[in-house]
Amino acid sequence: MGGDDAPGPNIDGARLALAEDPDLHVVLVGDESVVRPAVEGGDDYGGRLSFEVSHGVVGMEEKPTAALRAKPRCSITVCWTLMAERRVDAVVSAGNTGAVVAAGLRTRLFLKGVRRPGIAVTLPTLKGRSILVDVGANPLAKPDHLVQYGVMGAVLAKEVLGVENPRIGLMNIGSEDGKGNDLYRETHDLLRSSPATAANYVGNVEGRGLYRGEADVLVCEGFVGNVTLKVSEGIAEFLMTAAAGQVMGDLHANAASLGDAAPAAIASAKSSFESLGNRFRYSKVGGAPLLGIDGTCIISHGSSDATAIQNALAAVELFQHAHLNERMAEALAVLQPAPATPTNP
Amino acid sequence: MGGDDAPGPNIDGARLALAEDPDLHVVLVGDESVVRPAVEGGDDYGGRLSFEVSHGVVGMEEKPTAALRAKPRCSITVCWTLMAERRVDAVVSAGNTGAVVAAGLRTRLFLKGVRRPGIAVTLPTLKGRSILVDVGANPLAKPDHLVQYGVMGAVLAKEVLGVENPRIGLMNIGSEDGKGNDLYRETHDLLRSSPATAANYVGNVEGRGLYRGEADVLVCEGFVGNVTLKVSEGIAEFLMTAAAGQVMGDLHANAASLGDAAPAAIASAKSSFESLGNRFRYSKVGGAPLLGIDGTCIISHGSSDATAIQNALAAVELFQHAHLNERMAEALAVLQPAPATPTNP
Repeated sequence: MGGDDAPGPNIDGARLALAEDPDLHVVLVGDESVVRPAVEGGDDYGGRLSFEVSHGVVGMEEKPTAALRAKPRCSITVCWTLMAERRVDAVVSAGNTGAVVAAGLRTRLFLKGVRRPGIAVTLPTLKGRSILVDVGANPLAKPDHLVQYGVMGAVLAKEVLGVENPRIGLMNIGSEDGKGNDLYRETHDLLRSSPATAANYVGNVEGRGLYRGEADVLVCEGFVGNVTLKVSEGIAEFLMTAAAGQVMGDLHANAASLGDAAPAAIASAKSSFESLGNRFRYSKVGGAPLLGIDGTCIISHGSSDATAIQNALAAVELFQHAHLNERMAEALAVLQPAPATPTNP
Repeated sequence: MGGDDAPGPNIDGARLALAEDPDLHVVLVGDESVVRPAVEGGDDYGGRLSFEVSHGVVGMEEKPTAALRAKPRCSITVCWTLMAERRVDAVVSAGNTGAVVAAGLRTRLFLKGVRRPGIAVTLPTLKGRSILVDVGANPLAKPDHLVQYGVMGAVLAKEVLGVENPRIGLMNIGSEDGKGNDLYRETHDLLRSSPATAANYVGNVEGRGLYRGEADVLVCEGFVGNVTLKVSEGIAEFLMTAAAGQVMGDLHANAASLGDAAPAAIASAKSSFESLGNRFRYSKVGGAPLLGIDGTCIISHGSSDATAIQNALAAVELFQHAHLNERMAEALAVLQPAPATPTNP
């Protein structure tokens, strides 16, 4: 039910993924009037497409906690319940991000040792790809939460991006020690001293450094991460519009000197900007995992199309195959304080 | 003395500005071995170029407060002292931003009623230009500080960008009421209710909205603003590199179909990207005013070249002519609590 154009892209994306992956099963969760015909009205892929009825939806503009309380059997709550009952392995949603996270927190379905789950996004950089955690799951992060994001993000970078020793950085307003507020100073000290992160911690990284690929995993609290992600979307949209306008405008202005080749040159540039749009448009990206869940939760962009939903379902498969949660639990165990030595009174 | 390539661009920028503006006087502040030959070794524009000797510099990587304590007559402290003594009207620096701000705070040279100065930057958007305050002067902002940034930013938008009724927005992680942490929720309520801002307040604006031009003035606390600015620089650099690579690569790949016109098409695109670089490169922008100072302080980018310094000096002129501080003081006066009515015992 979630997403700006739901339910169309969710249903179509599920069908695309089912056709592609013979091991995949999808349960569509939603109002009966939506999910029953979506399943019964076409191929059910040998029983691999089924549905579960829920009642009500948390709208994109609703306040998550109040809406979840008011609608105890809404679609996102039913999704998480299915996962808590181990009837599904993963939840994929393009709905209200706050509601997806809040419904998940209610299940307390956390990986062992995890204090607060965080959302990770993979962003393109000058050097390849980097992971940013948290982009909005945790508005009240503490230093030990951020250290856990570094540890879990590093597992993601290693297992999914294929980086052998992922460099962990702390997004900050300067690269020197002592930069930022108390949260960032304490996190910096912890990342530098923790046995789980010290060897791969590259220190504070400025906003510029994110897109220069100065770290494979960048850690920040949710407000800053969310603004970073949305500013990035905004400026990408703005710059691509400006760049296309400039390049096409100049080619048109130079049409005389290009002669008969002018249309071909303009067509080439037009196709270049279409390729760029596909490379950098966030609605094409499958989604962002909520790290720290005992299960898999992929949060897709509200404007996801069917391809994005298909990609999100493929990401679930990737995470399962990489045994991401087992690897994260092992890495997080290094962070746990040693059990207190029993003393004889 | 401040800036990545100092003192060259500062001296050259001053000379460019002096040649352009016959009313301008510039005092170069720095080590005697630098500023004396810079003035005495060439035209002094009829005495309009002079120098003031300082001792020591706060380096770009130094901690501002410690460095200012250790170097009581360093260049930025002398700059602010000259302004506090009304021997100059403005300070322009491309040095350590934290040190420029900290040295200013020490003079307490604040506009009447201002709680904490904030740095304003002007950013290009899909609709024109918008102002973002604060991008890093105030790491511990309180709601009333942010409201003052909205008021002062609106004066800047009106007097400098020429926007008649500037729309004020609060940078937040969602557009609905109640979004963000306590700081943002309280600021949202204050902006909505204050007589100085209520009429022009458009509410919470997401990071995407900044570059869509959804507000003329966007208010945020310094950490978020600084990350926003530096992420913007980073992604602009990254996207322009990616876009140029794609467009030029595709034109080369299509060279056969372009025939003799291929070199002209490639030259056209190359020049387009050079124009874009000049439009969006931050080192070309003159600098960002520190709003809330009883005087004028322009903080230039560390990588400023001579043109950027010249532009910063031109911005000083613009602000003086627009009587920006008088307009801000008037606007801020609306925020002041009414004086307590004297009561007879």
